Amino acid sequence: MKLSTKHLLGIKDLTKEEISIFLETATQFKEVLQRPVKKEPSLRDVTIVNLFFENSTRTRISFELAEKRLSADTINFTASGSSVSKGETLLDTVNNILSMKVDMVVMRHSASGAPHFLSQHIPAAIVNAGDGVNEHPTQGLLDAFSIQEKVGKLKGTKVAIIGDIMHSRVAMSNIYLLTKMGAEVTVCGPPTLIPKYMKAAFPINVSYNLQETLNWCDVANVLRIQLERQNQVLFSSLREYNLSYGISRRLLESLKKDIVIMHPGPINRGVELDSDVADSGQSIILQQVENGVAVRMAVLYLLSNKNN
Amino acid sequence: MKLSTKHLLGIKDLTKEEISIFLETATQFKEVLQRPVKKEPSLRDVTIVNLFFENSTRTRISFELAEKRLSADTINFTASGSSVSKGETLLDTVNNILSMKVDMVVMRHSASGAPHFLSQHIPAAIVNAGDGVNEHPTQGLLDAFSIQEKVGKLKGTKVAIIGDIMHSRVAMSNIYLLTKMGAEVTVCGPPTLIPKYMKAAFPINVSYNLQETLNWCDVANVLRIQLERQNQVLFSSLREYNLSYGISRRLLESLKKDIVIMHPGPINRGVELDSDVADSGQSIILQQVENGVAVRMAVLYLLSNKNN
Amino acid sequence: MKLSTKHLLGIKDLTKEEISIFLETATQFKEVLQRPVKKEPSLRDVTIVNLFFENSTRTRISFELAEKRLSADTINFTASGSSVSKGETLLDTVNNILSMKVDMVVMRHSASGAPHFLSQHIPAAIVNAGDGVNEHPTQGLLDAFSIQEKVGKLKGTKVAIIGDIMHSRVAMSNIYLLTKMGAEVTVCGPPTLIPKYMKAAFPINVSYNLQETLNWCDVANVLRIQLERQNQVLFSSLREYNLSYGISRRLLESLKKDIVIMHPGPINRGVELDSDVADSGQSIILQQVENGVAVRMAVLYLLSNKNN
Repeated sequence: MKLSTKHLLGIKDLTKEEISIFLETATQFKEVLQRPVKKEPSLRDVTIVNLFFENSTRTRISFELAEKRLSADTINFTASGSSVSKGETLLDTVNNILSMKVDMVVMRHSASGAPHFLSQHIPAAIVNAGDGVNEHPTQGLLDAFSIQEKVGKLKGTKVAIIGDIMHSRVAMSNIYLLTKMGAEVTVCGPPTLIPKYMKAAFPINVSYNLQETLNWCDVANVLRIQLERQNQVLFSSLREYNLSYGISRRLLESLKKDIVIMHPGPINRGVELDSDVADSGQSIILQQVENGVAVRMAVLYLLSNKNN
Repeated sequence: MKLSTKHLLGIKDLTKEEISIFLETATQFKEVLQRPVKKEPSLRDVTIVNLFFENSTRTRISFELAEKRLSADTINFTASGSSVSKGETLLDTVNNILSMKVDMVVMRHSASGAPHFLSQHIPAAIVNAGDGVNEHPTQGLLDAFSIQEKVGKLKGTKVAIIGDIMHSRVAMSNIYLLTKMGAEVTVCGPPTLIPKYMKAAFPINVSYNLQETLNWCDVANVLRIQLERQNQVLFSSLREYNLSYGISRRLLESLKKDIVIMHPGPINRGVELDSDVADSGQSIILQQVENGVAVRMAVLYLLSNKNN
Repeated sequence: MKLSTKHLLGIKDLTKEEISIFLETATQFKEVLQRPVKKEPSLRDVTIVNLFFENSTRTRISFELAEKRLSADTINFTASGSSVSKGETLLDTVNNILSMKVDMVVMRHSASGAPHFLSQHIPAAIVNAGDGVNEHPTQGLLDAFSIQEKVGKLKGTKVAIIGDIMHSRVAMSNIYLLTKMGAEVTVCGPPTLIPKYMKAAFPINVSYNLQETLNWCDVANVLRIQLERQNQVLFSSLREYNLSYGISRRLLESLKKDIVIMHPGPINRGVELDSDVADSGQSIILQQVENGVAVRMAVLYLLSNKNN
């Protein structure tokens, strides 16, 4: 099994077969992570640079752990304290780093399309670790991996994506991936946070009613309300958001079945998710984090061309 | 020899026997550090995350070196540029990192008790690298190790702890450890910087007279005046502090004997310690730093359970 | 072949023979970097600390890659978030780190002479990674290495150094190195950016005419206009600087020959160098970056005394 793509820029560009290769390879690496010795020599002699132009904890650490467990050499680069503040162009920064014989670039950038732009100008493999409001493909893969692991399959599984759809690259990568793999998708949130074109552009349902959506779905992927990015005019207050679209224990108990709760983190407890839901047996939020390392190991391994 | 504790949260909870295990193991690692090849394979396949929610140079680097010399994989996390600034709870941040299969957590936090709280909620071993004004147990261990190395024994050795006792986690860990091990302890400083309860709470002496204290002691452990934390009303000026409680060459020469000078660093030269004292043959300040790596190797090794 | 020096503080102190040793060793490491397996075990068991008191991307990453490819253990230290902000002296900071058994120090500092000062007080080998407006010796070496590689030799090669000579440690290291090795050097720029003493102090030519200088030279090493450092009264505007001393395609085409274009980066495109020059076949800017890793491997290897 081989990928036709050299980069992982987004789920949008992947075929169903390519998604399956990523998910199956991640299954193998998840087994590695259960062993006492979690290290694999696969990427020995591969140098990977983590270029984070936006703040990140979990994604950066998750990639770094994936790289170290594959025995790659890693270089961390963050925007602050860098020549970016000296006015250098993105392409110059990256070309300079690549000239030092770096094999792969993991990149997060606030500009949608930044990794796509780079991929047309540099020879190294690029993994998009989140670009603006466009995509966050490894999150899409780890979410799908986690659903498959919990529910048993993606095809036919009913997944609700709940919250700020408009500003969420996680939502985009989930929508692309789940619809390609035959899952049924409903996006749910306040009308101000769901783009008007969603229903026309994607084979998904749109709902503004949380209770109905939860009654319908098998899995609820609850998005983070990004306090730091949000234009506060889009909803009146966090308290009101919680009342209308926050998921409480009582709401879950009112449903006729147990649904799976997911969240990409970090959680705003008491806003989009109450604590007794986030920490309940229905929540697979920490499994998502664990699966993230396995999925990223799979992505780095497959793109490294060390699997020939 | 085995520890009954899984974590190192503070010296307060340790028995005399456990302290001895740490100190004896540190002696072995100090020998390793004298070799040309300073690396040991003991913690190969152990992943340690350094969670520093407070700024630190020496402690973070000392732990990182200890980890690397034990061949552990290390991940550094600092509060700035992290999801902490996105409003995530401490427990969520740590649980997320642990879900990535991290084995040990080295943690510094401005809140007293933060590592104790975590230890009740997470499965990984926790090493407290300083929590608020509570404890800094590896500093306590390295100070004791350095006294034992220089003086020959802890039991019966007269140790003065001088300066801002009230805000010092270093003082607390020293007091717990030295009194458990049979050393005699006097705390000395301006009345405003020594809590009223000290004499009632601990088997120690309290003195406000520096000259008398120095005449009494074998070892003076001089604390840093923490300019960045201090409420300036507690003493009138740095100059006045230096005149009353700073240690000068002339003062040392007025004593009837040579005492050992210690300091946890970073030194405010000309405030609590004059330069010709800090750099004199009586000072073991740099030996403390060297011993810090050996002590931290011992702590990490013993808590890793790799010594069964 | 052995160096008489223990440190690399500047090119000023090196003999012609020592420069040759660095350049020849770099040639060998450049060959290593072309291999699929770029890693050498040479500095296994050597611990190197990268002390960056000034922001840097490329230099810090270049050193870190060089260290990792020699299998050294590396510790990164940056000024922010460090005890420097707690008022510790430079010597105390470095002595503390060295007490942890660090073998080599790579250091960037805004004060000219900071590494020279340290070298008189500490036992570890020091590599100057840039000190104020004094020197940036590994940049001098990598520039010379790149000229030699492209032109075939240093002796007799005509090199123009163009731009802000007054504030450039890159210019200083280039001037020392190139004149020692028998190259002919002209510095060129606005009179306000070239110190009056240049012609008296060094065996070089001074020119204020860019076209004449380019017609004369084989190689143009174009310096960065350091917007963040520059006192803007030294020239009227970036636009005017570009018109008088910026290198354009048209200007290059007006010459009777092809000259080699170099730049230490990061480039201000449209100021000192137009984009179609920076990205042209005459430019060896990215080769300089690649050579930087080989040169730094050579420097670290030779100073480590592992080549006995």
